[in-house]
Amino acid sequence: MEKMKKNKGIFITIEGGEGSGKTTQSRLLKEYLEKLGRKVLLTREPGGTLFAESIRKILLSPDSRLVPLSELFLYEAARSQHMEEFIIPALKAGKVVICDRFTDATVAYQGYGRKLDIKLINRLNKEATFGISPNLTIYLDIDSKKGLNKAKFLDKESYGSDGDRIERESVLFHNNVRKGYLNQAKKCHKRIKVIKTQSTPLKTHMLIRKYLDAVL
Amino acid sequence: MEKMKKNKGIFITIEGGEGSGKTTQSRLLKEYLEKLGRKVLLTREPGGTLFAESIRKILLSPDSRLVPLSELFLYEAARSQHMEEFIIPALKAGKVVICDRFTDATVAYQGYGRKLDIKLINRLNKEATFGISPNLTIYLDIDSKKGLNKAKFLDKESYGSDGDRIERESVLFHNNVRKGYLNQAKKCHKRIKVIKTQSTPLKTHMLIRKYLDAVL
Repeated sequence: MEKMKKNKGIFITIEGGEGSGKTTQSRLLKEYLEKLGRKVLLTREPGGTLFAESIRKILLSPDSRLVPLSELFLYEAARSQHMEEFIIPALKAGKVVICDRFTDATVAYQGYGRKLDIKLINRLNKEATFGISPNLTIYLDIDSKKGLNKAKFLDKESYGSDGDRIERESVLFHNNVRKGYLNQAKKCHKRIKVIKTQSTPLKTHMLIRKYLDAVL
Repeated sequence: MEKMKKNKGIFITIEGGEGSGKTTQSRLLKEYLEKLGRKVLLTREPGGTLFAESIRKILLSPDSRLVPLSELFLYEAARSQHMEEFIIPALKAGKVVICDRFTDATVAYQGYGRKLDIKLINRLNKEATFGISPNLTIYLDIDSKKGLNKAKFLDKESYGSDGDRIERESVLFHNNVRKGYLNQAKKCHKRIKVIKTQSTPLKTHMLIRKYLDAVL
């Protein structure tokens, strides 16, 4: 995939399994960049657009009995809309775009988790992103079981919910997802940086900053 | 694509532009086959499953501002779910499956109408159908403008509506769709039979029967 050289913006994606602290880290990153005087678009996948948020509901509803291939196509549908409507215009406007989950999540979850063909996933990812790849991807690494328990605990505390459709998958599924992320990070070691989640969000944030300075 | 030889069922798709009478012909075909003692599943695309019907709503709502690629992925998402949940089990059970629109519609509408890459569409169609191709496809050919006016008139009469998102496209768009169907029919002349819509639904139905007998 082609890097975002033609655009003035910077594209950063935050990846990680359940309970890895992606949302918190994305926010801390946004605050930091804004303090530096950068214009930032913080967004997430699947979502961002009105249409993609309605796809998100289908994807995360525990009532959906989606076949893996259908799930893959839905993620790509949401992604291409999100790219064209939000991400590409923001990059063209020179903003820093922080996206909570992106193409690597599809490789990890649909490829290593659901066992769909990785080549097909890469092909669809390339189409749906119009060939645009992040300048930097932070993968927040956490033990799958620990992360899953944390995510479920937060869901129970905040919404009284037993977790979404993905969180309800087995620990084995989430272990495979983690393997997928780590393999991706090996393959694309220039773009993807692995950061072990630290004892506090701020400590993790400080580690992210180091990699960030290189792309700013 | 591989024909349905492994299964005992017969897979028939009915294609055509707006106002070509697909729905009426599908029903007449179902009645005829049931009189012959066949078990029939009549279904449509996008739709058939609860999930796919919710995708259908997004696809046909005039409020959706979908990018063409996103539209394509949504159709394929609905299709793969529809195949696995409905069509493949019905074929395995020896039924005749009649599907109102299928893969050729994606080539015609998203390829020739929206100008997306036909190779990509063929690739996605193959994935989403698990390589299963209809035994017979009937393409109901009608002048685009005439058909469109008919469809819009029926929408107004029945629902007081100004037509769905696809019907609101220009006559040029629908002319391109028609060209797409006719090209497809040339390429796959063994599978796709072109039938000009006749002065009455019954006359058209009698023409369809001729081709039907060859696959029964």
